[in-house]
Amino acid sequence: MTDVLILSRSEAERVFTMKDALEAVEEAYRAQGEGKVINPKATSFVVPGYNGEVDIKSAYIESMNCSGLKFAGGYWDNPVKYGLPSVIGVILIADGSNGMPLAIMDGTHVGAYRTGAAGGVGAKYLARKESERVAIMGTGNQGRLQLLALLENFDISKVYAYDRDKARRTAYAEEMTLKTGVEVVSLDEPRKAVAQADIVVTATPATEAIVFDDWVRPGTHINAIGADMPGKQELDPLIFKRAKAVVDLREQCIEIGEIQNPIREGVITELDIYAEIGEIVAGKRKGRLEDDEITVFDSTGLGIQDVAAAYRAYVNAKNRNIGKKIQFF
Amino acid sequence: MTDVLILSRSEAERVFTMKDALEAVEEAYRAQGEGKVINPKATSFVVPGYNGEVDIKSAYIESMNCSGLKFAGGYWDNPVKYGLPSVIGVILIADGSNGMPLAIMDGTHVGAYRTGAAGGVGAKYLARKESERVAIMGTGNQGRLQLLALLENFDISKVYAYDRDKARRTAYAEEMTLKTGVEVVSLDEPRKAVAQADIVVTATPATEAIVFDDWVRPGTHINAIGADMPGKQELDPLIFKRAKAVVDLREQCIEIGEIQNPIREGVITELDIYAEIGEIVAGKRKGRLEDDEITVFDSTGLGIQDVAAAYRAYVNAKNRNIGKKIQFF
Repeated sequence: MTDVLILSRSEAERVFTMKDALEAVEEAYRAQGEGKVINPKATSFVVPGYNGEVDIKSAYIESMNCSGLKFAGGYWDNPVKYGLPSVIGVILIADGSNGMPLAIMDGTHVGAYRTGAAGGVGAKYLARKESERVAIMGTGNQGRLQLLALLENFDISKVYAYDRDKARRTAYAEEMTLKTGVEVVSLDEPRKAVAQADIVVTATPATEAIVFDDWVRPGTHINAIGADMPGKQELDPLIFKRAKAVVDLREQCIEIGEIQNPIREGVITELDIYAEIGEIVAGKRKGRLEDDEITVFDSTGLGIQDVAAAYRAYVNAKNRNIGKKIQFF
Repeated sequence: MTDVLILSRSEAERVFTMKDALEAVEEAYRAQGEGKVINPKATSFVVPGYNGEVDIKSAYIESMNCSGLKFAGGYWDNPVKYGLPSVIGVILIADGSNGMPLAIMDGTHVGAYRTGAAGGVGAKYLARKESERVAIMGTGNQGRLQLLALLENFDISKVYAYDRDKARRTAYAEEMTLKTGVEVVSLDEPRKAVAQADIVVTATPATEAIVFDDWVRPGTHINAIGADMPGKQELDPLIFKRAKAVVDLREQCIEIGEIQNPIREGVITELDIYAEIGEIVAGKRKGRLEDDEITVFDSTGLGIQDVAAAYRAYVNAKNRNIGKKIQFF
């Protein structure tokens, strides 16, 4: 009763695949759409003097009867200064019945995969079913995971990769072609990537538009992943004049998501947000209606994703007897 | 570099004494008074259907270069339904330089002791130095820890214990006499306890006054520990008309502390709060000025206490080679 399961990063990797992430995140969104979650406002603070920030997300999901939180550090100088990853996370989940911790696990793998899966679920409900060409704008870790998530739900034939850093985008194209068996090409012009894509993914730390309105063809779906703080931006606000805008959480996206930008600039208002993704997954609102609609999914990341993902990893680990049991209390 | 120290409850008990708690909490308050902490608003939510709540407090303390959080479950039916404690906590602390978790530990012991120590530090700065008689109102776990904390700082000669539950207060008197060597007597009339005391501690879950204004002699110091939610109350609001009111955090106490009550009833306003305890510990404001002042310390509990306490426990454990090192990342 009082054992807590500890999962290291390598153990979490073994028990939590992209398929797990997609199912867990879809369940989290569905529960959200049904009003059966608690998803408190995240806590974030900057650690002065270290170019670092701490981000704490928490949630409760009724269907899993599970509460929990993710503690995540984002320290952008870590790779150079310490040889450490820039994002480090720990997730704790607890039994909703009595508050007893069930598991404490590395949240870096689980957290990254649940973010990848957010895009996968967004595209499942918003992109055209026959989407086969993907533009990946920003070829870092999320550029990889977003693509892996899309490959689970779509029959992708070609991927266009763009990054400001040519070496990065070239390496990405090579690596991901090998890894996925799909042709991934690196393009020097971002416009060419976007203009040929059915699904566009933006996964950069940009603070101004990198995808412009006149590049975007009718029928395109855009997963806007990068913006998760005030001041971040990846899309030309004008895109929102034509697009159906879906968010993960209204009040959060208005503050820190991509949609902060078109709202601030007066291109749209909060009332122009079509739906939360959970409402669509739960069947309360329709997703894509027309083939030539432009759709945008503004994903900022929710505590329910972390809790649902970690709960899935915990159940898988228990079933396969992976991880260390610690007598904590 | 990537090891995380895990401390179970029994290990935390070995490495974290009341003396540690008093020093850690005093340092946390001092840092707060010097403006060298980040202490975000706590996150709390009720878990529907289980008479439970989850409370998450986080902080960063510059002098320790340490960030962290406490996840605490409060489930009031746990003892009867599951044979589990009603309060269960886990604390995580991380290196402020790079976000790497340093330790994950049981937060039940550390959390309870840091709450005890809050009263100890409050009394150190606000009670008369020669205080020797203590009234403990509410003889649960905090009633015990609050007394242990006071014994570290004062030469206590007599303790008057009151609780609505006669069996509880009688057991407390016996147990604490044996444990402390000080005469602890159980009283049937709360008035008699308060009227004879130099220091009064309220540590109950009460939602209406249990200590009345005309019982309180000039020169008394009151540690108001119980109130930590809207609707909680232990003191007659009229006491605040005469008392110097010190809080742990202004904006938090106004919402959830004892001081919510006299403010709501118009007995005082927010402007009548004399100081935050941190301002006094840091030497920016004086504590007690006159022997016949009545002083109240409204302690609601801060993330900085948890982080400072856990950091102390971590350092002690490392020095004594206690706990399990886990390769987490």
